[in-house]
Amino acid sequence: MNSKSFQDYYPDNHAHCYGCGRLNQHGLQIKSYWDGEESVCQFRPHPYHTGGFPENVYGGLIASLMDCHGAGTAAAAKARSEGIDPETEPFKRFVTASLKIDFLAPTPVDATMELRGKVRSIDGRKVVVDVSLTADEKIRAKGEALMIQLLDHQ
Amino acid sequence: MNSKSFQDYYPDNHAHCYGCGRLNQHGLQIKSYWDGEESVCQFRPHPYHTGGFPENVYGGLIASLMDCHGAGTAAAAKARSEGIDPETEPFKRFVTASLKIDFLAPTPVDATMELRGKVRSIDGRKVVVDVSLTADEKIRAKGEALMIQLLDHQ
Repeated sequence: MNSKSFQDYYPDNHAHCYGCGRLNQHGLQIKSYWDGEESVCQFRPHPYHTGGFPENVYGGLIASLMDCHGAGTAAAAKARSEGIDPETEPFKRFVTASLKIDFLAPTPVDATMELRGKVRSIDGRKVVVDVSLTADEKIRAKGEALMIQLLDHQ
Repeated sequence: MNSKSFQDYYPDNHAHCYGCGRLNQHGLQIKSYWDGEESVCQFRPHPYHTGGFPENVYGGLIASLMDCHGAGTAAAAKARSEGIDPETEPFKRFVTASLKIDFLAPTPVDATMELRGKVRSIDGRKVVVDVSLTADEKIRAKGEALMIQLLDHQ
């Protein structure tokens, strides 16, 4: 894996997201990387990230991670498809148009989660990413995100 | 509106959700109420709940609110459909099977959000809830949640 994450390549003025902004001191600060053709993000929940059952995480955390990892994957995939070197040109930011999550099994709060993203399609400014979430070697949730690249002037 | 929220009727052992648990000191502690046939929840984001743009909220917060408000609405609707008085019998908890969100417009971080839930169907342990999110008098996101009532033994 590269030592710098996707989120390290966001421009400073787009790096304050609670989920993935490296400049948000209160946030989750997730980090996503390429692992071959897939993107990967590992996240260890805090003990207070509990859900309806105290031993599991709340669904909103899963949604947050899928959303931000999906956006990062879209930005990285788009740049890669255009042959852009992020060391010389920061990623262009994507925002979420739609997010669909199927919760397949409870996700334990005391385990490291691994999200894996696969780019299904890149069509102009639209990128579709499939994301799976695994914990304790079992898939817990699957998501599909439609991401839209922001226009330069936005 | 009733002075007690849906979340006040969750049993103590199911009241630690980061999004909606009244016993989670670190969490959002959202409160949902009936307003006629619709359920309503108002939430004021913290300044650090920013998204890719510093003036807007991050998508994961919207997903968290829709998820928890949807679960609360399902529990309240199911109890009401069975004529159960929550003052004498706590709500039975619902968990999310799937959640689909369409993000229609950016949601400002400096405004109070209002979520409104409508129960589309109640079929045994399955309840489908449609949720809309409004801020500054404009609909910002729409969601659809499939909620499943937990079995007594779980």
